[in-house]
Amino acid sequence: MKKDLNELEENIGKVPMIMKKWADEDPEMAKFVLALDKGIWSDGALSKQTKKIIAICVAAALRDSHAVRAQAAGATSIGVNYDEVEEALRVTFLLAGMPAYVWGRTAIDEFMK
Amino acid sequence: MKKDLNELEENIGKVPMIMKKWADEDPEMAKFVLALDKGIWSDGALSKQTKKIIAICVAAALRDSHAVRAQAAGATSIGVNYDEVEEALRVTFLLAGMPAYVWGRTAIDEFMK
Amino acid sequence: MKKDLNELEENIGKVPMIMKKWADEDPEMAKFVLALDKGIWSDGALSKQTKKIIAICVAAALRDSHAVRAQAAGATSIGVNYDEVEEALRVTFLLAGMPAYVWGRTAIDEFMK
Amino acid sequence: MKKDLNELEENIGKVPMIMKKWADEDPEMAKFVLALDKGIWSDGALSKQTKKIIAICVAAALRDSHAVRAQAAGATSIGVNYDEVEEALRVTFLLAGMPAYVWGRTAIDEFMK
Amino acid sequence: MKKDLNELEENIGKVPMIMKKWADEDPEMAKFVLALDKGIWSDGALSKQTKKIIAICVAAALRDSHAVRAQAAGATSIGVNYDEVEEALRVTFLLAGMPAYVWGRTAIDEFMK
Amino acid sequence: MKKDLNELEENIGKVPMIMKKWADEDPEMAKFVLALDKGIWSDGALSKQTKKIIAICVAAALRDSHAVRAQAAGATSIGVNYDEVEEALRVTFLLAGMPAYVWGRTAIDEFMK
Repeated sequence: MKKDLNELEENIGKVPMIMKKWADEDPEMAKFVLALDKGIWSDGALSKQTKKIIAICVAAALRDSHAVRAQAAGATSIGVNYDEVEEALRVTFLLAGMPAYVWGRTAIDEFMK
Repeated sequence: MKKDLNELEENIGKVPMIMKKWADEDPEMAKFVLALDKGIWSDGALSKQTKKIIAICVAAALRDSHAVRAQAAGATSIGVNYDEVEEALRVTFLLAGMPAYVWGRTAIDEFMK
Repeated sequence: MKKDLNELEENIGKVPMIMKKWADEDPEMAKFVLALDKGIWSDGALSKQTKKIIAICVAAALRDSHAVRAQAAGATSIGVNYDEVEEALRVTFLLAGMPAYVWGRTAIDEFMK
Repeated sequence: MKKDLNELEENIGKVPMIMKKWADEDPEMAKFVLALDKGIWSDGALSKQTKKIIAICVAAALRDSHAVRAQAAGATSIGVNYDEVEEALRVTFLLAGMPAYVWGRTAIDEFMK
Repeated sequence: MKKDLNELEENIGKVPMIMKKWADEDPEMAKFVLALDKGIWSDGALSKQTKKIIAICVAAALRDSHAVRAQAAGATSIGVNYDEVEEALRVTFLLAGMPAYVWGRTAIDEFMK
Repeated sequence: MKKDLNELEENIGKVPMIMKKWADEDPEMAKFVLALDKGIWSDGALSKQTKKIIAICVAAALRDSHAVRAQAAGATSIGVNYDEVEEALRVTFLLAGMPAYVWGRTAIDEFMK
């Protein structure tokens, strides 16, 4: 499990707290979700950097104050840069409204500057 | 206006019907939105292909049956390929639930295969 | 109950199908919801026309294809006009994204033209 | 009204603050909503415990930070237990994304442990 | 994989089409999601019937026309009955609005009557 | 730009922080959005007061804690009064659930009383 958590950390920059809770309290659930994470975050047709940007945008579109900060927190350490996310958030503005942009922008101003 | 609409077509693959309605019926609104579109879709820190993928994911996360199809419709003609969007939708699954994946997948199976 | 349904029809233009189902199959639920409707739709600080416009915008913002059509269906018969809703949908665009506008616009183009 | 508020407290564990505001400032609105609440929360085909679990999941799926805490606050006192809600939130994860689980889990870790 | 798909069918009544697509085209993704499904749907603190009801309500709250029908489709064959879901949808009404109820009710009227 | 920002302030009561950031850091984006704002907020078929009420309701329906406060903050200074918004939020309750009402009510109790 430790190894899988490290691998996830490399893919997404920062393992969410819930995953650590699962690893401690409910190893079976942790195993399921880690397997799913593996299928989702590894480099493939898209780089993990691009995937991270998408995750931030989706969280912002859903006005998910928790998820948008959790995603933004790991972005810098895997090499995503601020301007890329800022541009991606403009697309989110068009599709989900100006406040969606603001949610994302607030999170990256906090974690990526 | 014609020139701006053509430029938008190059950026996003397919101009949405609403933009054509605005151009015909309400040129002032069309002008505002075209200016905004220009600030959003042009290549910059991110390529327009990556922006399109983000647009599809945000629309899928919102279960927006209209927008997800409108975005998917233009993807191929600007050089986005199926596997990239499919991978991006896995991220959307994690952040917004399996049905969000299904909304996106259904749209790309219709327009990008 | 008949009288209450008629009163609701006067307030919102068109009684939703679900209310008729409840009136037939589950009169108690119908009674509760009709009482709530009374507290919501009657003229007060806002006219019922303004309330109807708000209902269309909220439904559009939620990408609720069912509700946006159900609300638009009754708008004309209580004296709301097309241009008012179209302008209201621009606000919805800013707050909830361009596709939210499109959902509303599609509904009013179908029912209010 | 007092009696109805007590009855609601028995059904849902904790009367939301808004209901108390309505009871004080706008008794007519309070009456409408209390009547609706009665039609919704009483035991029937489903127990009130199951209804409470559903309310938590819906609030979590909507990333409604206010509602998820308001619902979780009353759960223990009507006999819902932690493990039931935790399992229900896994379903919510699948349908609405991992962050929806996190919203619910955070609320029950605060109020039900 | 065949065995896992059968087990899932027993738990949720009807395997969603996307799972069959994954099993055919992308067995690795199928494996990840089936493992997750196992951790979610099996009987535990809650019965699989209660979990199904929750899934329908969450899908209805999100106005997810696809998911609400997909979930409702399998409900009867695992022993959920109509009245239970109808009552659960009243809770969804309160938390997510009357149209959320209508989305769920329309799906169960189609698949569970 | 200064003149446009002042004009926006007159239309919506309080210019959102993001607009000031854009004006400082990214004047081109500011220009696009200000042009769009002009097309949206000016008096027309609807007064700017009615538009503000709609903005609050849409933000509340989306459980957008940031946007609902940002919109409510400017309402009083353009002449919207508390009772109008409170009634509009009842419509939002019906379409988007009781918690949507609570989000809006909390914001107007903070900024409009």
